[in-house]
Amino acid sequence: MQNEMSDLSRLCIHTITTKPWDVETAAKHFSAAGVKGITVWRDALQGRNIQDTGRMLRDYDLSIVSLCRGGFFPHTDAAKRMAAIDDNKRAIEEAAQLGTSLIVLVCGADPLQSLNESRKQIHDGIATVLPYAAAAGVKLAIEPLHPMYADTRSAINTLAQANDMAEALNSPWVGVAVDVYHTWWDNSLEQEISRCGKNDNLFAFHICDWKMPTTDLLLDRGLMGEGCIPIKQIRSWVETTGFNGFNEVEIFSNKYWKEDQELFLKKIVKAYAEHS
Amino acid sequence: MQNEMSDLSRLCIHTITTKPWDVETAAKHFSAAGVKGITVWRDALQGRNIQDTGRMLRDYDLSIVSLCRGGFFPHTDAAKRMAAIDDNKRAIEEAAQLGTSLIVLVCGADPLQSLNESRKQIHDGIATVLPYAAAAGVKLAIEPLHPMYADTRSAINTLAQANDMAEALNSPWVGVAVDVYHTWWDNSLEQEISRCGKNDNLFAFHICDWKMPTTDLLLDRGLMGEGCIPIKQIRSWVETTGFNGFNEVEIFSNKYWKEDQELFLKKIVKAYAEHS
Repeated sequence: MQNEMSDLSRLCIHTITTKPWDVETAAKHFSAAGVKGITVWRDALQGRNIQDTGRMLRDYDLSIVSLCRGGFFPHTDAAKRMAAIDDNKRAIEEAAQLGTSLIVLVCGADPLQSLNESRKQIHDGIATVLPYAAAAGVKLAIEPLHPMYADTRSAINTLAQANDMAEALNSPWVGVAVDVYHTWWDNSLEQEISRCGKNDNLFAFHICDWKMPTTDLLLDRGLMGEGCIPIKQIRSWVETTGFNGFNEVEIFSNKYWKEDQELFLKKIVKAYAEHS
Repeated sequence: MQNEMSDLSRLCIHTITTKPWDVETAAKHFSAAGVKGITVWRDALQGRNIQDTGRMLRDYDLSIVSLCRGGFFPHTDAAKRMAAIDDNKRAIEEAAQLGTSLIVLVCGADPLQSLNESRKQIHDGIATVLPYAAAAGVKLAIEPLHPMYADTRSAINTLAQANDMAEALNSPWVGVAVDVYHTWWDNSLEQEISRCGKNDNLFAFHICDWKMPTTDLLLDRGLMGEGCIPIKQIRSWVETTGFNGFNEVEIFSNKYWKEDQELFLKKIVKAYAEHS
C-alpha cells in the first residue's frame, strides 16, 4: 500500500494549492502532469460559466472531486445566519452545475458567542440546507479544523466532534472530510477514522505537512515530507476503512505561491510519490 | 464569584510576562502594585543565589506559586533523555531552594518519533523524577499544550490526556496545570476540569487571551479581555472544583514586551479585574 503512490490515479490537487494559476491554467498543467483529480475553490469560478468550466475540466480527464467550500454558518446575527444559508444553497447549485457530488464545509465560528452556540448553529445550518443538497445529489463533508482556528473559522475542531455531528444529522448526504493538517496531533485519530469509515461517513482525505517551525497560522503549510505529520500512517488508517477516493493536496503557502508554479507542481508530484 | 477580582489576593504573574524586567525589578513592581503571587521562570534565576532570590521574593510578600518549567522528556536519543532527567532533577532542587512547592511541566515532543512514543517517554520521565520530587516536597503539574505545539513542545495536547497521565502515575506529587490559552477550544474542557478537581489533581490555573487574529504561534498572546476566550466561565469551572489557588497571568507577547513594563503591569491589573 505504501509504495503505490508513483501511480497518480488518486492524486487530486486543490485549485488554491496553485493559487497564482486560474482554473484553466491549473487544469492544463495538472492534466499534463498526470494528475487525475481537481478540487475547485469557489473563487476560481468567479466570472465563469460554471457548466462550461466543469466540461473543460472533464475534457482534461480530471475528476472534479469536490467544491470548496461551504459552511460559515454561525453568527450572533440572525440575518447573517440566513445569508449563510443562502450562500450554502448557492454552493450546492454551483456544485451541481460544475458536476461534482461533494462540498467541503468549513463550518465557521463567531467569537462573539460561545463555541457551544456556534456548534448548535452549525448543526441547524447543515440541517436546513440538507434537503437542497439531497435534491441536487450533492454530499456535504464536515471538515474539522485545527483548534488554532476555533476563534473565527470553525467551532468543529476534532474528528470526534465532526463524527458526532454527522451521526446526529443521520443522512447519507452528510459525512466528514479528514485533513491531516487539522487532525494529526489527536490521540483519538485512528479510532475516529475507523468510526467514520464504519458509518460510511468518510467522504474526503486531504494531505499536506506541518512545518517546523510553522511561521504563519494560515499560510505556511508544507509539502508532504517537509514536516512532522505521519501522512503514510494516517493514509493507512483511512484506507483500512475501505476508502478508495482521492488523496487531495491542499496547501496554503505564501512561500510556494511566490515560486514558479510549474516547478511547484513538479515538487507536489514528487512529494506525493515519496511521502504520502 | 465573578466580581471579586479587583481584590488582587489571588493574582500571580509569571516572570516571563514582564520579560524585559529581571526578577528583582519584577518583584519590586509586582509587590508595589498589590500583586500577591509570582511564578518564576528558570531563566530569571540565571547567575543568582536561588535561596537568596527566594528570600527576596518573600520579603516583597510574594507567594512563589511555581517554578516554570521542567519537562521536555522525549528524545529519540537515549543520552538526551537522560540529560532531560538530570535537568528535571536540577529543576526540583531549584524549586526547593527557591521555596516553591510546584513545578510546571512542558512535557516536550520529538518530531523524529511518533507522538505515542513521545507520550510514553513523558510518562517514563515523570515516573523517574517523581521520587526526587516527593523527597523534595515539590509537586509536578503536567500542562497540556495547545495542539499547535505538538510538533516540538508537547505531545500532551488536551486536558483529557494530562488527566489520563496524572491518574496513571497515581501520586499525590503529580497533577495538572490548566491554561486557558491551550485548552479553551476543547468541548470536553468543563468535564475534564471537573475530573481533575475530583482527583485532587488541579494544581495550577493560567490565564491570558486568544487574539483575533493571532499573528505569531508563540509570541502573540493577549491580555485578558483582548480575545475570545471565555475566561470567567472557565475560572468558574475551576473554582467549582474547590480550587482556591492563584490565577496566574502568563503572557508571551512581542508587542507587550516592547512597551513600558510599568504601563503594561497597570494594564494587567486592570484586565485582571475586569476580564478574569
